Parts: sequence; C-alpha cells; structure tokens
Amino acid sequence: MPITADADIEITGYNWVPPFAEGFVRDLRARWFCEEAGLPYRERLISAVKKPPGWRSEQPFGQVPVLRDGNIHLFESGAILIHLAEKNGKLLPAGGQARADVLSWLLAAYNSVEPVQNELANIEMFNADEDWAKLRRPVALDNLDRRHRSLDHALKDREWFAGEFSIADIAMVSVLRSSVAMGTLTEHPTLAAYVDRGTERPAFQQALADQLAGFDPSHAPGMEHA
Amino acid sequence: MPITADADIEITGYNWVPPFAEGFVRDLRARWFCEEAGLPYRERLISAVKKPPGWRSEQPFGQVPVLRDGNIHLFESGAILIHLAEKNGKLLPAGGQARADVLSWLLAAYNSVEPVQNELANIEMFNADEDWAKLRRPVALDNLDRRHRSLDHALKDREWFAGEFSIADIAMVSVLRSSVAMGTLTEHPTLAAYVDRGTERPAFQQALADQLAGFDPSHAPGMEHA
Repeated sequence: MPITADADIEITGYNWVPPFAEGFVRDLRARWFCEEAGLPYRERLISAVKKPPGWRSEQPFGQVPVLRDGNIHLFESGAILIHLAEKNGKLLPAGGQARADVLSWLLAAYNSVEPVQNELANIEMFNADEDWAKLRRPVALDNLDRRHRSLDHALKDREWFAGEFSIADIAMVSVLRSSVAMGTLTEHPTLAAYVDRGTERPAFQQALADQLAGFDPSHAPGMEHA
Repeated sequence: MPITADADIEITGYNWVPPFAEGFVRDLRARWFCEEAGLPYRERLISAVKKPPGWRSEQPFGQVPVLRDGNIHLFESGAILIHLAEKNGKLLPAGGQARADVLSWLLAAYNSVEPVQNELANIEMFNADEDWAKLRRPVALDNLDRRHRSLDHALKDREWFAGEFSIADIAMVSVLRSSVAMGTLTEHPTLAAYVDRGTERPAFQQALADQLAGFDPSHAPGMEHA
C-alpha cells in the first residue's frame, strides 16, 4: 500500500528516463497525493522512448502522467491532483476562501512559476553550450529569481501556501525542487526550507522511492534488445 | 449587464496597456465567463505602471486579474475560471468523465500550451532584434508548432475540446488567440477555425469590447499628469 496490483487507480509513468530526469517525472505528483491520502494505486510503466501505439489518444502531447480511476481518464498532473483531491475529500477544501486559496496557488505553480523556471532549466540542462543560451541566461535567471522573491514574500512565516498542506503544496514543492536542483534557491532560505518541509514528508519519500524503483536500465535506448 | 456597479463579483484589470497587449490581458478570461453565464460583475481598473499600495498582498506576482466574489478572493485566471464555474454551475460539469475532460484540457492550456507559446511570444514581441532571439527562434517556433499539431490531432472534427463549450475552451481559445496573432496558425486551419468559433461567440465579443473600453490613454506613462 498504496502500490497495489488490483487498485482502481492507475498512474502511468516511465520504465526508464535519463539520469537528469530521475525523480522529476511528473507522475511523482500523482503518486505523492496517493501516499498522502493512503489511496491504493497501480503503476503502468511505459517506455519514454517508444510510446505505446495510440498513446496520444490517452495523452495528447505524448507525455506522462495519465490517470485512470475506474472508468475516468485524465491527463495533466494539475488536473489529476484536483480530481484525486475532490474524489477523496483530501488536500482541497470543499469551498470558501480555503478552496479559493488552494486553487489560486495550484494554478500559480503551474502557470506562473513552472513556465518561468522551464526557460532556465532548458538553458541549463539542454543548451548550456549554445551561444543563444549564454546570452539569454542572465535574464532567465533574473526572471526566475523575481518569481522566487514573490513566493518568499507571499509565504513569509507560514508553513504552507494555502493554510493546511494541500495539493497546491504538492505542486509548488514539486516545481521548486527543480529550482533547488539548479542551485537557484541558495539565497532564498525561506523557500528552500519550505521545499525541505515538503520533501521530508514520509508520503513524498515513499512516492519518490517508488518512482525511482520503476526505472530499469534495461529499458534505456539501445539496451532494449541487449 | 454583466458590468454592473453594485455586483458581488469584482474583476480587476488595467486602466491602460501598451497597444500590443490590448485585448490580451487575462482579465478577459474572467469577463468572458461572466458574459457566458450572464453573471453581473463590476470592474476595478488599476494602473499597470504603478500598482496600488500593497498590490502583492492581492496578487503575489503583481499582475492581474484578481477576482473578488463577495468575501472570496482569488488570483490566477485559471483558478478564477474554476471558481466561477463551480459557484454558478456552468461550463464545468459536476463530475464524471465530463468534468475530468474539462479539467485536463484547462490545465493543458495553462501548463502545456501557453508556456511553450510564451517562449516564442517573448522572442517575437520583446526581443526580435536580439542575437540570442534570432538563434533560438527556429526551435521555439518548432516547439510551438508541435503543440499545435498535437491540438489539431486531439480536436479532429469536434467543436470544442471537452464536449460542450466549457472553461477549458475559454482558456484554450484565449491562449491560441496569441498563436493567431503571431501568424503561427496559418497552416493549422482546424485550430484556426476553432479559435474563430470561440471568438465569434457574442459573450467573447462583449467581454473584449468591455476590456478595450477600459483602456484610457490618459493613464499611459508620462500622461498621468498631463
């Protein structure tokens, strides 16, 4: 538990990723929710290199995660978090300002923080030696730092972004882990401590361990028939 | 109606923006919902140049829109759309696969399409003459085109992305309007026709007209004391 072979909930992830992506594939966000809620789920691990036939009918952009919950099918980890929270009555209040806060911060993670971070991550991880990347890097770094400062200011001395721990924190901590990995939170101790609070939760640790356990080097490109 | 001085709902927008941003500020998405639902709202138009004191306590990134609905406060247009839809029982089914589809496509617009589009928009609108932008532009263009192809494939011959017209379409049409404006949908007639279907709706037209009517050149930088 929660990984359970005959569970109603199925989370699709990858059976192998390159080392830089280990622990950062977004099925981790869905797994984390299930661990927090004690919700059994089964894994479906597909090849990141050669997707199953017709995969885009399940995930229009050819990515993961996809969630199946009985007959219900969702893609986009943000939508999956909302669905799981509503169905299980956990980590997303049913109404009022408490729900408004969680929805606002959930969307902030997905639309105001992660896209700005992605520009820098794309430079650092895939294009560091490119001329354009060297020229653009200072601005991309500054743009992300301004987002971090805004988050610092908003979080202040609170433990979580929207009252109790919520799906907004699953999203925001998951996003900000990449800021930590890029070394961009060293001057933001408040935010860095927030990420630590999130990742120290046993539910996160279990979800991360289970994602990592699913990566099998025999599925690496060139190894599949070795 | 729906703009009504004593309405419970208040949408914050700007009282002036530079010409390139006219009709693209994201309070349009909230206005559009209100028009579709016949929901009265009042406007609060603030300066885009000099934000009100303490604005970041209302919008952590210093942007618009912000929604007030009686005592409830939200930021992030995606969260505002979910809130308005849930409160009014419109454009977001209450459960089942229909709700899952709307949530999946709503998040797709905000996390899988708009961020990819933003990279190209940032190049085209603000950095076209920069060396890094010229080097990066072909890849940014191709990345966005791949998203457009995925959307084309997913939409096929359907009218809207998730069954009936929904908040997912308010988001996706709003995002794809910028693709049209950048000339990147000329080879995607299916998607271009989808954007036309959305923007031809009387509710969109009214919302757009009302946003544009709120822009006052006397609030342009350097004109405020003219």
